[in-house]
Amino acid sequence: MTQPLPSKPFLDVLAGTRQAVPPLWMMRQAGRYLPEYREVRTKAGGFLDLCFNPEFAAEVTLQPIRRFGFDAAIIFSDILVVPYALGRNVRFEVGEGPRLDPLDTPDKIATLPPRADGAKFAPVYEALRRVRAELDPKIALIGFCGAPWTVATYMVAGQGTPDQAPARMLAYREPQAFAKIIDALVESSIGYLLGQLEAGADALQIFDTWAGVLPPREFQRWSVEPTRRIIAGVRAKAPHAKIIGFPRGAGALLPGYVEATGVNGVSIDWTAEPSLMRERVQSKVALQGNLDPLALIAGGDALDRAIDDVLENYAQGRLIFNLGHGIQPETPIAHVERMVKRVRGYRG
Amino acid sequence: MTQPLPSKPFLDVLAGTRQAVPPLWMMRQAGRYLPEYREVRTKAGGFLDLCFNPEFAAEVTLQPIRRFGFDAAIIFSDILVVPYALGRNVRFEVGEGPRLDPLDTPDKIATLPPRADGAKFAPVYEALRRVRAELDPKIALIGFCGAPWTVATYMVAGQGTPDQAPARMLAYREPQAFAKIIDALVESSIGYLLGQLEAGADALQIFDTWAGVLPPREFQRWSVEPTRRIIAGVRAKAPHAKIIGFPRGAGALLPGYVEATGVNGVSIDWTAEPSLMRERVQSKVALQGNLDPLALIAGGDALDRAIDDVLENYAQGRLIFNLGHGIQPETPIAHVERMVKRVRGYRG
Repeated sequence: MTQPLPSKPFLDVLAGTRQAVPPLWMMRQAGRYLPEYREVRTKAGGFLDLCFNPEFAAEVTLQPIRRFGFDAAIIFSDILVVPYALGRNVRFEVGEGPRLDPLDTPDKIATLPPRADGAKFAPVYEALRRVRAELDPKIALIGFCGAPWTVATYMVAGQGTPDQAPARMLAYREPQAFAKIIDALVESSIGYLLGQLEAGADALQIFDTWAGVLPPREFQRWSVEPTRRIIAGVRAKAPHAKIIGFPRGAGALLPGYVEATGVNGVSIDWTAEPSLMRERVQSKVALQGNLDPLALIAGGDALDRAIDDVLENYAQGRLIFNLGHGIQPETPIAHVERMVKRVRGYRG
Repeated sequence: MTQPLPSKPFLDVLAGTRQAVPPLWMMRQAGRYLPEYREVRTKAGGFLDLCFNPEFAAEVTLQPIRRFGFDAAIIFSDILVVPYALGRNVRFEVGEGPRLDPLDTPDKIATLPPRADGAKFAPVYEALRRVRAELDPKIALIGFCGAPWTVATYMVAGQGTPDQAPARMLAYREPQAFAKIIDALVESSIGYLLGQLEAGADALQIFDTWAGVLPPREFQRWSVEPTRRIIAGVRAKAPHAKIIGFPRGAGALLPGYVEATGVNGVSIDWTAEPSLMRERVQSKVALQGNLDPLALIAGGDALDRAIDDVLENYAQGRLIFNLGHGIQPETPIAHVERMVKRVRGYRG
């Protein structure tokens, strides 16, 4: 008789079981705030070189687990690997963020292939397999992609912008052309997420960082509906896939997103209103979040109080403790340690 | 016997009476999208010179009323006149936005006076009197100030930033010093708003453009509570003052803001969730908003549909039609005309 696999608290929460001590990880936990990350980053060359080098990507994925003992590892990669695999020219300029050739007219969009070249994802899958082989079986491994809306905002503008106006404008003026970008991203993301599951991911997260700039009708069309299609497409082949959505800034549109998309959990940012989240979101799915990353930089009493607020607001239900957005490079490691200790000391 | 004054639809909505055709104005309606504005702007010199020249400020305030027949004029000014009157060095660099000397340490903050030099506001009051004298009595005149939180974000950082991190960080690390800035702004704003009422303003709006970056506890402390104090201070001397709040991006925190502050109306941005707004906000106060300014730039079918969405969502209750944020300089005038015609044609 084989031993039953040890349970993973992170997955148990997603599957429906609250944990007395909430499982814990951090968005962007493999990142520049860690000296060991910066060392590998220097060796790897460019940012995309790091994403596509299985040895280095696996190494930086594991670093925060070794240091802090988080309950989940998230594969080190970037949401722009999908446009890269769609043949777009993606670069990362030092200190500047991503740059792409803008895809901002119907003519240019007509040249976009209907789906990504799946072979381009092979190094990400290989990195997942390497992490899987080394990871403690109690710790979950998360694969991810960007939501089509958010990825499209970068593809259209060619870079990040404060309010993603170029994509919003194109979606108003040329909705059919814009839908073609979204469709290609939906198709590509389904394949990419299934490949990540096959390579060893236990769960998936769909990052919709720019969902919060959309009016309700456009939120439904460009954020909710493409996410629903991706999840349906993944579950058609992997019926039990556990998926977390993160429509950042969705606010009161979140309950509708949860109902329509079929996510098992949602990540929420630090501006969420607690009673709405408890009553209309956490009552249905797991909730992940939502410490303000600036409180983690600030430290001290402000950090303790912000951690306690998250626990008081949400730890009576199904909670995965996380930040409300990615950890920032200037965050002191001692503050992360303080957070881990305080969350792990929770007895609710 | 004197004639009764004609009623002002804008004020009627704020006072409790829905209008069959919602009254209409636009945030930043006196602005660069108008050639007649750009002409005065060139004559005036710098941006603050325009704010503090009663003749020019009155003229640009009246321009959009003459052109579009809006139901309300808002005095041309800027939220940074209050820090200016508090002795801060405020400049507007062309194409760069506002610049101030950063007020980012307890030592610097200790030098801030407890309230503004009221004499500095005299040109704004004079501009209000001039507008009042020329304005059709059916059209309301709005005075305004920035909410302390939003004004403080600029005072601390010395400029606008994407997420107002410098002020958020100072508020975490040095809450008592930060509270001193907020207190000075509360005191100054009460006097400034009362002065505007005395000079002829029919109603007041408090702009909290950066309310949406705050977690619930900080939103309560730095946005809601200072706004409540300002409104209580104004009403202590002007009990019937009509006041609109605009905590942009507050999302599901808006119902709590409405209850705590005592506003007569709230301006909402274009990302608001309609059923929450109707049930928990518009049931209590007037609602102002919330067309996406990008839809107004886009024009065509997208504009018509976005206008109709606002009307369908909110015109059965007390609605003041407006944008969800300020009109942008590149907006075609023909699109504004199209919007005015469509809203005025509404028969709900």
